Amino acid sequence: MCSRPEPPEPLRRVAVVGGTHGNEMSGVCLARYWLRAPGELQRPSFSAVPVLANPAATAACRRYVDCDLNRAFTSAFLTARAHPDDPYEVTRARELNQLLGPKASGQAFDFVLDLHNTTASMGTCLVAESSHDVFAMHLCHHLQLQSPELPCRVFLYQLPGEESYSVHSVAKSGLGLELGPQPQGVLRADLLARMRALVAAALDFIQLFNQGTAFPAFEMEAYRKVSSVDFPRTETGDLAGTVHPQLQTQGQLASR
Amino acid sequence: MCSRPEPPEPLRRVAVVGGTHGNEMSGVCLARYWLRAPGELQRPSFSAVPVLANPAATAACRRYVDCDLNRAFTSAFLTARAHPDDPYEVTRARELNQLLGPKASGQAFDFVLDLHNTTASMGTCLVAESSHDVFAMHLCHHLQLQSPELPCRVFLYQLPGEESYSVHSVAKSGLGLELGPQPQGVLRADLLARMRALVAAALDFIQLFNQGTAFPAFEMEAYRKVSSVDFPRTETGDLAGTVHPQLQTQGQLASR
Repeated sequence: MCSRPEPPEPLRRVAVVGGTHGNEMSGVCLARYWLRAPGELQRPSFSAVPVLANPAATAACRRYVDCDLNRAFTSAFLTARAHPDDPYEVTRARELNQLLGPKASGQAFDFVLDLHNTTASMGTCLVAESSHDVFAMHLCHHLQLQSPELPCRVFLYQLPGEESYSVHSVAKSGLGLELGPQPQGVLRADLLARMRALVAAALDFIQLFNQGTAFPAFEMEAYRKVSSVDFPRTETGDLAGTVHPQLQTQGQLASR
Repeated sequence: MCSRPEPPEPLRRVAVVGGTHGNEMSGVCLARYWLRAPGELQRPSFSAVPVLANPAATAACRRYVDCDLNRAFTSAFLTARAHPDDPYEVTRARELNQLLGPKASGQAFDFVLDLHNTTASMGTCLVAESSHDVFAMHLCHHLQLQSPELPCRVFLYQLPGEESYSVHSVAKSGLGLELGPQPQGVLRADLLARMRALVAAALDFIQLFNQGTAFPAFEMEAYRKVSSVDFPRTETGDLAGTVHPQLQTQGQLASR
């Protein structure tokens, strides 16, 4: 991997997005906090903008109102003519595309950090579009070096030939932070503190990059989706099985 | 406490209710299972009826659609003239009152067991209306004796002078089972197995009672609500504090 991440220009337009899913509370609470007190997002060379991505879902404490906002940033949704019957999240994706994009344009934000939680015991997961986002890969490596004692895995979400669809795909570069386990609608202080520290470290990395710091080449392990495995289900679609009690939460415990 | 619980007659009409809150998955999944395979709810002297209390909230995997069903069983809601604009849960409360009640009538079910989860680390909590429900108190004592190694606390929810409002208040006697911690919308196998065992033990107790078994007098510890303590909040109502990370989940760990 190259020793200095692209793009060559300093990053000035940076956003930190919470509440893309309205019941993932680390990002919801941090975005609300930074909207009142944005000083924590300032660095000498830039000031990151806090964004509450899905206010309606956040108010309802639901993942989304009509459809998943984090799947709505496709060209089909973003370029279609607006209609009063459009799903709320499609309308909101267009608004965010105006604010942070337009996607794939020179006017798009330089970097978007998108904050998520999961009920899965996966610790910290860094979700990038693909390894072609070299800046995001260097940021992932930097974050892993900050807390080597914690599991911090890199997941590359884009499948071959698939169009990007996430909030952070609107920007020139971006990364999702996925922290778990945390129940939906519940705020755990440990994950809140971890998310806050990760965001601070990411902004510090951008500051280092803007100062002209050189970052050495590296190799890193990353995960891709191989397949989806659903729970066993009945003919009517109800659950017919659960995670075995001896395995539940063990992913987290084993790796810590 | 009297050595033989009231009422003096055998209990024939018994219901086990899940999904009163649509995202508390132990009861949702058990009710769905028993609706397909009710044999597990049969005892020699009676067959308990499985009920999915809030199908719309269960389908949406939400606590409720319009208002909390488990607060809707008041005489004001149950006796008001039906109106097309009534909240879904008020309409549903009237339907359940027809099925399991009418509340405070001789036709009401003998016993209703209502299955809940909480995200709080409280282990097993048995929620009764008041200590005046002597049958429920004897059942609580029986359940505590079944698994003395597990925390199994009794909570009396009714405040002095307050009208009962829960699903199980429709029956002549009833009890809520509240198991945690479990994230909303998530099914943990350990809590599912615990809930299933508690229901089986409760039905076994009713069978023993119906056979004429005498139950010795006892004393028991029970909890009442003293006051509500909200999280600290900002002027706009947002959270301004969380449970301390060193305290989170410790309630459960300390008592196990």
